Amino acid sequence: MVEIEIEKLNKLMTDILLSNGVSEEEAPVVVDSILEAERSGVESHGVLRLKPYVQRIKDGLVNANPDIKIAVDRDSIIVVDGDNGLGQVVAEKTLEICYDRLEKSSIMVASVRNSNHFGTSGYFSRKAAEKGYLAMIASNASPTMAPWGGLDPLLGTNPIAMSFPIVENSNFTLDMATSATAKGKIRTFERKGIDMPTGYALDKDGYDTTDPKAALDGGTILPLGQHKGYGLSMFVDVLCAGLSAASLSYETDSMFNSNNIANIGHFFLLIKIDDIVQREQFDNRMQEWINTIKSSETRPGFEEIYIPGEIENNKLSNQEETIFIHEKTYKELLDMSNGISVK
Amino acid sequence: MVEIEIEKLNKLMTDILLSNGVSEEEAPVVVDSILEAERSGVESHGVLRLKPYVQRIKDGLVNANPDIKIAVDRDSIIVVDGDNGLGQVVAEKTLEICYDRLEKSSIMVASVRNSNHFGTSGYFSRKAAEKGYLAMIASNASPTMAPWGGLDPLLGTNPIAMSFPIVENSNFTLDMATSATAKGKIRTFERKGIDMPTGYALDKDGYDTTDPKAALDGGTILPLGQHKGYGLSMFVDVLCAGLSAASLSYETDSMFNSNNIANIGHFFLLIKIDDIVQREQFDNRMQEWINTIKSSETRPGFEEIYIPGEIENNKLSNQEETIFIHEKTYKELLDMSNGISVK
Repeated sequence: MVEIEIEKLNKLMTDILLSNGVSEEEAPVVVDSILEAERSGVESHGVLRLKPYVQRIKDGLVNANPDIKIAVDRDSIIVVDGDNGLGQVVAEKTLEICYDRLEKSSIMVASVRNSNHFGTSGYFSRKAAEKGYLAMIASNASPTMAPWGGLDPLLGTNPIAMSFPIVENSNFTLDMATSATAKGKIRTFERKGIDMPTGYALDKDGYDTTDPKAALDGGTILPLGQHKGYGLSMFVDVLCAGLSAASLSYETDSMFNSNNIANIGHFFLLIKIDDIVQREQFDNRMQEWINTIKSSETRPGFEEIYIPGEIENNKLSNQEETIFIHEKTYKELLDMSNGISVK
Repeated sequence: MVEIEIEKLNKLMTDILLSNGVSEEEAPVVVDSILEAERSGVESHGVLRLKPYVQRIKDGLVNANPDIKIAVDRDSIIVVDGDNGLGQVVAEKTLEICYDRLEKSSIMVASVRNSNHFGTSGYFSRKAAEKGYLAMIASNASPTMAPWGGLDPLLGTNPIAMSFPIVENSNFTLDMATSATAKGKIRTFERKGIDMPTGYALDKDGYDTTDPKAALDGGTILPLGQHKGYGLSMFVDVLCAGLSAASLSYETDSMFNSNNIANIGHFFLLIKIDDIVQREQFDNRMQEWINTIKSSETRPGFEEIYIPGEIENNKLSNQEETIFIHEKTYKELLDMSNGISVK
C-alpha cells in the first residue's frame, strides 16, 4: 500500500480527467465520488475505477463533454438523456435539474438513459439527504447474476441506495446491491485464498460453490435473499432502463472489456420532506427512533448497532489528510499522468 | 380441510362484514383481497384474517365507516388520512384518488396514516399493473424483527410490492417482506414439527435458532440478507410513517393482541408508463426480456424459471369454483355469521 495525501490524489486524478477532455466543472464530481468511495471503505468503486473510465474516453466509448438533455418532460417525472457522458457527470446534472424543479414541486422522479457507471448509488443519495431530501437512487449494471433458478448471467447487481436526513447522525444511507455479493468481493476472497460463505455464487454448471475461483470461472453471482434479490434486480432494471430506453442489464456489457457503448440507465426519486411533514416533527421522530434502535440491546457477537450508512459517515467525517491505496493502483495513476501538462 | 364454493365463501365473508357495519361499497375490496391471497397460496393473509379484522371493529379499534381524506396535498404527492378504516378500504380509496389524478399527472405518490393491516401489498400493486401502471406499494407492520446486531423487536416485516404490466404474462409482481421469513411461516414449521433453515430467526437470547418454538418464545425474525433487510425495513417505515405521521413499527402493536389503535402507514408510488415511454416499445422490450429470462438455462434442481408473480398469477387465472380452507377457519366464519341477518 502507498500512503498519499488526499489533496495530492485529488489533484492527480483531476488533472488526468482534464487532460482527457473532461471539463473543469465536471471533473470534480467524478473525483469526489471516487474519493468518497475510497475514504468510506468501498475500494471497489474507488481510485481503481479511474483507469477504465479514462480508457473508455480514449477509446471513444464515453463522451468526455456530453450535452445532457431532458428527453421527456412530464413536470414531476422526466427522462434524461446523458449523451454517453461519465455516469457521475450525468447523475450530478440530473440531480441539479431535480433540485431546481423541487423549488416548485414536492417530488421529482428521473429515469436516465445513455449514461455509464456512476460510482456508488449512495454517493448521490447521501448528497441529496445532506440537502434535506428523502432519496432513492438506483442504477443498472452489466450482467453478472442469473435469474433465480437459472445459470445464465442476465441481470446486473443493480444497486439501489436510499437516504434521508437525520439531525445528529447526518443521514441514513442504505446502499445495497440486489445481489448477495459483488464480483469485487469474490476477487478479494480469491486474492486472500479463502473460501466464500455459501449463498454468494454458483459455478459455471449452476452448482453452489464456496470456491472463489470456481465462481469467477464462468460462474454467476447469486441474488440477495434468493428470489427476492432476483425480483429487485429486475425491478431496478425497469426503473432505470425500461422507462428511459437505456439498455437493460442483459443488453449491456462490462465496462472493463467491451468495445460497445454501455447505455447504462439510472433512476432518481427525490421527496421534499418539508413540504409533506413539519420538518421539526420529522427530525424529532427520526432522532428518537434512531436513538431507540442504537440504544437497544445487542445480540451475542455484536458490540454496537449501527444505522445504515453510519459506519461510512463516521469514516467520512474523519479528518485524515492522507489515505492508503494499492501500489498497483498508484502506479496506474502515475502512468496515466505521465506526459500530461499539469496546470 | 373443508371444500367450499368460492361464491359461497365470498357471500359469507361479505355478509359478516356488512353485519359489522362495513358498507356495501367497501366490503367487496376486503373480501376480494382475502380471496386473492387465499387463491394465490398466501394463506397467512387469507380467510383466517377476517376474524381479527371483525374483532377489532367490534372492539371499537377499527372504524367500519371511515371518512378517508387527503390531509396534505402537493399535487403529485399527497398524505392520506385513513380515519382508522380497514387497511384494504383505505388502500383502495388511496388508489382511486391516485388513478383520478393520473388522468392529468404522470406520477403519483401517497403516504398514508391512520390505517390498518391491508392484506398483501401485492394485491394492490397487481391491480395497478392491470390498469397499466408501474407501481411500488408498501406498508409498515407491528414489530417482530430486531435491528441487525440487536435482539429487541423494533422493526416490522414491512413488506414492499413492485409491479408492472407484461402483455403475455399479465404482470410482474414482486411482493416481499423485508424480513427473512414471516411469523406465519415459523408457525407452519412449528405445526409440522420440523426445523427451520438457519438465517430465519433468533431465540430470545439473540442466538441463531432452527427451532420454531424457540423463535416464537420471545425470539425475533431475522432481516432479509442481514443488514440489507434491516435497512430496507427502516426505509419502508420512513416512507409509510415518517412522511405521513403514522406510527413507526416500534410505535404500534400486533393486530392480534392489542387494545390500541394501530395507526399503520402505507406508501404508494404509481407511474403512468404511457406518458414516459411509447407503450408498444415498452411492452415489446419487456416481453422479449421476459422471454429471454424464461427460456434461459435452468440450474440443477430447478425445472423452470418463473418471473416474480407468475406462480400466483397462474393460480389466480385458474377457474376453479371451489377452494379448500382449514376447518378451524371455516368454523370461525360460521361462528361470526351466526345470528346475522343475511340478505
